[in-house]
Amino acid sequence: MTPDQKAPVCVLGTGLIGGSVLRAAVRAGYDAWGYNRSEADAQAARADGFDVTEDLLEVLARAADTDALIVVAVPMPAVDHILAEVAGFAPRCSLTDVVSVKAPVAEAVRRHGLAARYVGGHPMAGTSESGWSATDSGLFQDAVWAVGVDAGTHPEPWLRVVRLALACGAVVAPVIADEHDRAVARISHLPHVLAEALAVAGAAGGELALGLAAGSFSDGTRVAATAPDLVRAICEPNATALLDVLEETLTVLSAARDSLRVGGTLVDLVEAGHDGRERYETARRWEITDIHPGDHNWLETLREAGRRGGVITELD
Amino acid sequence: MTPDQKAPVCVLGTGLIGGSVLRAAVRAGYDAWGYNRSEADAQAARADGFDVTEDLLEVLARAADTDALIVVAVPMPAVDHILAEVAGFAPRCSLTDVVSVKAPVAEAVRRHGLAARYVGGHPMAGTSESGWSATDSGLFQDAVWAVGVDAGTHPEPWLRVVRLALACGAVVAPVIADEHDRAVARISHLPHVLAEALAVAGAAGGELALGLAAGSFSDGTRVAATAPDLVRAICEPNATALLDVLEETLTVLSAARDSLRVGGTLVDLVEAGHDGRERYETARRWEITDIHPGDHNWLETLREAGRRGGVITELD
Repeated sequence: MTPDQKAPVCVLGTGLIGGSVLRAAVRAGYDAWGYNRSEADAQAARADGFDVTEDLLEVLARAADTDALIVVAVPMPAVDHILAEVAGFAPRCSLTDVVSVKAPVAEAVRRHGLAARYVGGHPMAGTSESGWSATDSGLFQDAVWAVGVDAGTHPEPWLRVVRLALACGAVVAPVIADEHDRAVARISHLPHVLAEALAVAGAAGGELALGLAAGSFSDGTRVAATAPDLVRAICEPNATALLDVLEETLTVLSAARDSLRVGGTLVDLVEAGHDGRERYETARRWEITDIHPGDHNWLETLREAGRRGGVITELD
Repeated sequence: MTPDQKAPVCVLGTGLIGGSVLRAAVRAGYDAWGYNRSEADAQAARADGFDVTEDLLEVLARAADTDALIVVAVPMPAVDHILAEVAGFAPRCSLTDVVSVKAPVAEAVRRHGLAARYVGGHPMAGTSESGWSATDSGLFQDAVWAVGVDAGTHPEPWLRVVRLALACGAVVAPVIADEHDRAVARISHLPHVLAEALAVAGAAGGELALGLAAGSFSDGTRVAATAPDLVRAICEPNATALLDVLEETLTVLSAARDSLRVGGTLVDLVEAGHDGRERYETARRWEITDIHPGDHNWLETLREAGRRGGVITELD
């Protein structure tokens, strides 16, 4: 097959992200099917007209037969088991994932001897809901989908993954695993940690405080509504990067506390925070063009562009 | 006049909150006018058909002549100056405010000899915008409006303030100043501080991190878009209560850091945070009935009800 064909897609795990990938892929015209370990969830997907079963070996046999792109969409704690089965029954398939950390997945992929056709992925989208019932074919519309450009990445599986992400409505941010993990510690895992801490502080104020709470508390604690197991599965595998930024933030908050106590002012924190939010609001995606997978230095070129906020919006 | 009449309303400060009170009061049929120190902002309000001038003494003379309810709607740093003028030119008017802290305002009110007809207020509503252009007559629809039930509160001005809050579409939470200030430190001022810290952490990740940021970062930093001076005017006057809850939160976050470092787990934080958010989501306002201002123990009764999440939705 040529890279611009829609190769079949096999999604392992049909929760919020995987199930939404399955829906979006089918909507985009892909031959796509999925696996879910829960019979009830698989049945719910089938009732909605999707080809999902709880028989992992059957699903993988079909992937191997059709040279499908396999999308690992289970939480990090389940990745190892799934990869063992992929290595056993579909070891030559192209492989990607939508897990929230990249270095630990890449390491597991290497351990299972699947590195040659693996390209990491992470669509930056979600809600505080989970499971098939929360899936949405439009979840990735205009979202950023991080796609790996680590050393040794092969052009063919890379193109498949990028095409799938674009077909799901996303734009693609090229990034290596370590830099991805450090970035998401800042903009995804730290927000979870702070939201949980804020929810704890609010609830400690009892009915009166919770009754007075309005937009700032509601927005600031929104992601604390996410299922605890899911939050842990997202944050804990990225402990090293998260610890770094959490330490940084404890330092910032302690300095603010000292400044408020001694000088009665929050000026440094508030001005730096306002600047940060403004940088976020004014950051503009720019389009990476002239992409030639396989050419000399193609990975380095994409990596550099990604660092400067570039995204891929189409392939030639 | 009897308490159920719509006594005139004089709003001092027509920014987001004060201007929205003016709009909502006029919409509800009140004779209402305002003052803004900026000629341009006063003109903008006049252009929208509202009676707003930059002449404070004229505005106060009219309030004194018509026995209006004066609503102080300037940021805390400007409260003292405004109260001095009220004491000079309209000392017998009923007086309330919509400032974000209550004990410091009450103290200033006492200092200026205006305590007898003062009842503190604080509508729990806002956006990250500010100024007349952001005002909205519907801003308080279904919002909670904290109204003071401190010792010594007189029924007549209290009824006027409650009626105005209800007429603006809000429900009224009865609360004393100290408890209000401790509660809003948790659910309004801490959210600001954490949002600023999160914005700092995200921006430190550069274009790549900001480009990958999605809902959790966007929601978690929303209030960091608020003008820095306004955030400081909201948080800094409540330093004592804010320092307590900030210290508490530093302890919670440090414990989470230690748990992640040593045990690789965030279980305690995440489960407590999820419980807190669930308590917030499931908290239900209940209606306080049988309100008899002036009766024996009426303030204590309302105070107790407010602590248990009760709100006033109508007066007999």
